[in-house]
Amino acid sequence: MPERVGKYTIMLNNKPSIRSYASVAGKKESEGPLRKYFDHIYMDTSIGGLSWEKAESEMQKKAVKLALDKANLKANDINYIFAGDLLNQSMASVFALKDFNIPYIGLFGACSTMAEALSMSCIFVESKCANKCIAVTSSHFCCAERQFRFPLEYGGQRTTTAQWTVTASGATVICKNQDNLPYVESITMGKICDLNIKDANNMGAAMAPAAYDTIKKHLDDTQTDIQDYDMIFTGDLGLIGSELLRKLLLLDGVDITNKHKDCGVMIYNTKKQDTHAGGSGCGCCASVLCSYILNKLQNREFKNILFVATGALMSTTSSQQGESIPGVAHLLNIKA
Amino acid sequence: MPERVGKYTIMLNNKPSIRSYASVAGKKESEGPLRKYFDHIYMDTSIGGLSWEKAESEMQKKAVKLALDKANLKANDINYIFAGDLLNQSMASVFALKDFNIPYIGLFGACSTMAEALSMSCIFVESKCANKCIAVTSSHFCCAERQFRFPLEYGGQRTTTAQWTVTASGATVICKNQDNLPYVESITMGKICDLNIKDANNMGAAMAPAAYDTIKKHLDDTQTDIQDYDMIFTGDLGLIGSELLRKLLLLDGVDITNKHKDCGVMIYNTKKQDTHAGGSGCGCCASVLCSYILNKLQNREFKNILFVATGALMSTTSSQQGESIPGVAHLLNIKA
Repeated sequence: MPERVGKYTIMLNNKPSIRSYASVAGKKESEGPLRKYFDHIYMDTSIGGLSWEKAESEMQKKAVKLALDKANLKANDINYIFAGDLLNQSMASVFALKDFNIPYIGLFGACSTMAEALSMSCIFVESKCANKCIAVTSSHFCCAERQFRFPLEYGGQRTTTAQWTVTASGATVICKNQDNLPYVESITMGKICDLNIKDANNMGAAMAPAAYDTIKKHLDDTQTDIQDYDMIFTGDLGLIGSELLRKLLLLDGVDITNKHKDCGVMIYNTKKQDTHAGGSGCGCCASVLCSYILNKLQNREFKNILFVATGALMSTTSSQQGESIPGVAHLLNIKA
Repeated sequence: MPERVGKYTIMLNNKPSIRSYASVAGKKESEGPLRKYFDHIYMDTSIGGLSWEKAESEMQKKAVKLALDKANLKANDINYIFAGDLLNQSMASVFALKDFNIPYIGLFGACSTMAEALSMSCIFVESKCANKCIAVTSSHFCCAERQFRFPLEYGGQRTTTAQWTVTASGATVICKNQDNLPYVESITMGKICDLNIKDANNMGAAMAPAAYDTIKKHLDDTQTDIQDYDMIFTGDLGLIGSELLRKLLLLDGVDITNKHKDCGVMIYNTKKQDTHAGGSGCGCCASVLCSYILNKLQNREFKNILFVATGALMSTTSSQQGESIPGVAHLLNIKA
């Protein structure tokens, strides 16, 4: 049964397992360093060409189907699906998942949504509210860009601090503990942190304080230190947010330099691919988790990692009204 | 500990209690039949006048503060806050809650969000992931109208099937079972139902099949029938959706006519107040639950009710692309 440890952390004593995981990605993502880890690549990311939003739904649907196939399960075996995305009213998830006939729990945590979905799935399985759950999120450059920034045809110049919305989706099936599968041991859900960053082209800076806050709380609650972990994966701070996070932790004497990777930095050859500060979007850390990270956990190359997904909680309306961009970060300790 | 009953229902054997509840509402809502049940009325719903979105955040903040006060608790006593609203990227919730310093779990289920938030809060408390949680949602006519339909200044004519977005917010504090408090006994989370309704001015019709599906599953799973309940409260089907729900259930021989009320119908004198098919919005069933319904449960006028919140999962983008409006409904059995 779950147990509270410290003030913010939930220990999952039954250690729910990640029974399967699947990732799909677009052309640009396939040109980055993680190509071989993705289960499916779309060379034409319009996927049918009806709309970019429908294309994102198709990707999410595919990720769920692949995760079910790899787990040798049918949709009917799943008790709940936890999902979300960046689009207004989560339309990518709604239209992706409506035909699966699985009870649907919609989430919104911006780019942190995958950690939120995974946390809820694990808590439901841990507490016996469910036998099996799916956590899935997605993002698509073309619909995110036109919703949050400019029409695609505009071709506006991007600042060096801007991040590139990843076209990808990642899905996992969570079940009761089974031998030889990666499992989730503990969860620290974060609070909203707002340091008054207002630049929608510098989301890394907006999210770094949230990542710092959640990591600190997790270390305090579990009385562990960085040396106990093989790696700390954040997503999606990008180059600038990652540097800020390292500096913030260093002020507390916590040095993550050699143990830290950010999903937004990992997914592209940022310089070669002209993605400036790196990738972002709900599909970024979801697809990196459901490809590279879980693969290395399954192979026991990593045995104990922190997965810290960060979200920039902004809308075009709040930005136009001069509001700041609050951040949030949720953390899972995943072991093999 | 929680236990699965039937295929879709979670039985909460520890029976988490609703320790406190609070509702705030606007001027139009105060002119309806539920005025005396609301904790706070805003006669000027611009609340400071900076923007309609900020006004909605203020309402949500107020509802949380009132619920905390009534429970004699501080924000620091709360482990998680589950929240959501209708605005793009849930901006009303984010800006309402960012200064409470409570770990934040963002949800999106359109008008069903209150049932989603309440379910998550109860499951977290039941399974000992939390000692105390808050569930809160809100909506505001002015920002919903301009986001989903027309600029307020346009003064477009409304169809008779249209619903009126409620300006209100409701919040509850959930804690371990305590004597003499209303408690949640079981939860049935719904799947997405899509009967291809495309009229954004007839959301009742889009949501009725989801309410039907979730109620049927709950009755089947718990082997109860309508006679076992004092009342079934849906929200927000409005006049048209309510009639459709009754007809759908009657086809199965289930007659709810004398036991059914809909929050969207209850909150206004629909004819006198010119609200056509009734109220809608995340704040509608939240404020009716956190005023009239919980009041009557606390006074033992009701002892056993079903609260079935329904959501129309549409965005302007999906509607403009000719998509249908899928519905979802989540159900809680609340007892006194």
